[in-house]
Amino acid sequence: MIRPAAPADVPTILRFVRELATFEREPDAVLATEPMLADALFGAAPAAEALLAEIDGAPVGFALFFSNFSTWTGRRGLYLEDLYVTPEARGRGVGTALLRHLAGLAVDRGCARFEWSVLDWNADAIAFYRAMGAVGQEEWTVQRVSGEALTRLAGR
Amino acid sequence: MIRPAAPADVPTILRFVRELATFEREPDAVLATEPMLADALFGAAPAAEALLAEIDGAPVGFALFFSNFSTWTGRRGLYLEDLYVTPEARGRGVGTALLRHLAGLAVDRGCARFEWSVLDWNADAIAFYRAMGAVGQEEWTVQRVSGEALTRLAGR
Repeated sequence: MIRPAAPADVPTILRFVRELATFEREPDAVLATEPMLADALFGAAPAAEALLAEIDGAPVGFALFFSNFSTWTGRRGLYLEDLYVTPEARGRGVGTALLRHLAGLAVDRGCARFEWSVLDWNADAIAFYRAMGAVGQEEWTVQRVSGEALTRLAGR
Repeated sequence: MIRPAAPADVPTILRFVRELATFEREPDAVLATEPMLADALFGAAPAAEALLAEIDGAPVGFALFFSNFSTWTGRRGLYLEDLYVTPEARGRGVGTALLRHLAGLAVDRGCARFEWSVLDWNADAIAFYRAMGAVGQEEWTVQRVSGEALTRLAGR
């Protein structure tokens, strides 16, 4: 079962975020706290939305997403920031169900694209995404300024 | 001079979007129209924001951006979708001024990151971004589902 996340799910989502970061070989990268996630998802001006996947009433995965915008299409897109399924629940179609649900939301909202990012070494995931019709944007690389470099660029 | 875009700038922005697409070797990729851009930037629920750069009152470049969100940092980021400076105005610091202005906005808004994407063959741009403190997220690749593949994934 896929349903929109509720405020009571925040501790579960943060646990899943940490498990995903560990899988992505960055276990110490998660600085987010429960209040930060609660504000981002359920505050006055939400920055993102989340879905919970459950089997027999127990949470087994989540997806966190937000809107982006393409000047070429002139339309919004749906960007999936995190997709996670617990190891115990893998192979039962939970990831597929979450992606299909998100694709449906993207279509319903008039989005031109449904996008997410994958680590280049995650061959299983890449094969899974290819089978779903995803095309890798191989010629583009994200550039990131953060921390002191951001403050410096801002001239602060 | 850098200023927020106004509704009267939409025709200029669309012209710049088309010029940028031509530079990116995709001249026919721009499906956006003036009403679509006007709605995205100045409608009831804006999908993006834009800045105009001017020299002596004439528009010479623009930046279009929106917020994203990182579950690791628990904070919003500022994502720059398009940055463009007209060929005549290049080499006069317009691109730098736009990036510095955006970095300032990112800091003011409490963003953890300021990000954008670059084409891998655009070596001049990559060198310019490195000098500003940007780090390429080389291990990540965007996956995109669009068009019929999106409808199919959605089960429509």
